[in-house]
Amino acid sequence: MHILVTNDDGVHAEGIRVLALELEKLGTVTVVAPDRERSATGHAITMHHPLRVEEVRLAGTERGAYMVNGTPSDCVKLGIEALTTERVDLVVSGINRGPNLGTDVLYSGTVSGALEAAISGLPAFAISLATYEEWPYEYAARFARALAEEILQRRDLPPGTLLNVNVPCLEPSEISGVRITRLGLRRYKKVFDQRIDPRGKTYYWLAGEVVDLDDDPDADTTAIRNNYISITPLHFDLTQHGLIPRLKEWDLTRCLALS
Amino acid sequence: MHILVTNDDGVHAEGIRVLALELEKLGTVTVVAPDRERSATGHAITMHHPLRVEEVRLAGTERGAYMVNGTPSDCVKLGIEALTTERVDLVVSGINRGPNLGTDVLYSGTVSGALEAAISGLPAFAISLATYEEWPYEYAARFARALAEEILQRRDLPPGTLLNVNVPCLEPSEISGVRITRLGLRRYKKVFDQRIDPRGKTYYWLAGEVVDLDDDPDADTTAIRNNYISITPLHFDLTQHGLIPRLKEWDLTRCLALS
Repeated sequence: MHILVTNDDGVHAEGIRVLALELEKLGTVTVVAPDRERSATGHAITMHHPLRVEEVRLAGTERGAYMVNGTPSDCVKLGIEALTTERVDLVVSGINRGPNLGTDVLYSGTVSGALEAAISGLPAFAISLATYEEWPYEYAARFARALAEEILQRRDLPPGTLLNVNVPCLEPSEISGVRITRLGLRRYKKVFDQRIDPRGKTYYWLAGEVVDLDDDPDADTTAIRNNYISITPLHFDLTQHGLIPRLKEWDLTRCLALS
Repeated sequence: MHILVTNDDGVHAEGIRVLALELEKLGTVTVVAPDRERSATGHAITMHHPLRVEEVRLAGTERGAYMVNGTPSDCVKLGIEALTTERVDLVVSGINRGPNLGTDVLYSGTVSGALEAAISGLPAFAISLATYEEWPYEYAARFARALAEEILQRRDLPPGTLLNVNVPCLEPSEISGVRITRLGLRRYKKVFDQRIDPRGKTYYWLAGEVVDLDDDPDADTTAIRNNYISITPLHFDLTQHGLIPRLKEWDLTRCLALS
């Protein structure tokens, strides 16, 4: 088995090291990750400058890794297309420090690494530890290994699918179980913090308090609150298929005539 | 009516100027756009540095605009939350130079501006001219105005919906009509161009030839090839709902036990 590992916290983050070492128990692991934190980069790719790849070692180990001056998406594209010759069986992105839940997955570099793999037709999952505090990654890494085995043995994830996994920040004995979920609805209030700089000019920090609008037990946001590991199947088709028939009833030839 | 306009080609691009001046015929227009090109930024937001807002004029006009050192998503968030007091009725992102079709919308800054509006519960659309060549924006701008009127009058776009519009690069008389579409499947071949720099080191340029895998007339990629304006309804829920029942059959307690 050949597993490609990436993240958005950067190649030197603890989460990717613990994950890669655990996944090595299943086969060959290739690590391709950004040179620095790339959080909140969404599904960005690098078009306007060349990508550089450097061979480094994962912190405190002899384990080699590729470090890229790009986004998680760039890393996965490079990993598949240029840095490996052996076919990749699975792509795993993480372990992220901090949750990737609900609407927020659109902003997530971690999820976007797995999304890029799904676009290339490879099975993939993203895994995040739902806390910004110090917390060991080992339990989440072992769960990732078990899930990877499950995916590789079953081979029934449809092409274009990725799984988004969030692990609550709890002792293993306090975890209620695993829940298959959908993305919950999150909003933010007080989105910006407006401040004045030492030269009297205004600037804005993105801030915001999260508001979970979803109490549905099937929402990933609820599952994490209830001490479950959440697994949400995602795809990359943003089409709102259900709305197509209604829009077809709009008389848009009028718009053409006005143009 | 109050319309917020953004783009990803930057506040000084011709496409946003032509669009804003045309939409002003419908009411008040507030322009909030990036200070420079932000193509392929996906749905990124700026968390790690403060956002600055500067009041500028749209190229060659007396028309004011807000210029932000951020992404289209940042611009829409700032526009709604901080820079306007009057309620926003519609958000329009564009007119982009270059198509935003199929799987590529995930990388699109233009679409992400409209997506951010949809997340905030506002009706929105993104509009792109399907060429990288010089081509006048006036026809696409008039179509945008007619579509904006349609949306504002009908008021039946469900919350969380945005429309992704692509206009072919053709004389008005050559346009076949409007087609309501879904996102087509695109892949790229020869994704990276590998080169050697003057100091003998390897670097990679993202390149790639687009391969449209979809011949379905209902795909946006096909519609554009057949000289139609494509309109694809999008939403921001990446959940693959259809897969949830199948995943619930997986025995994932096994994974917990192994962890």
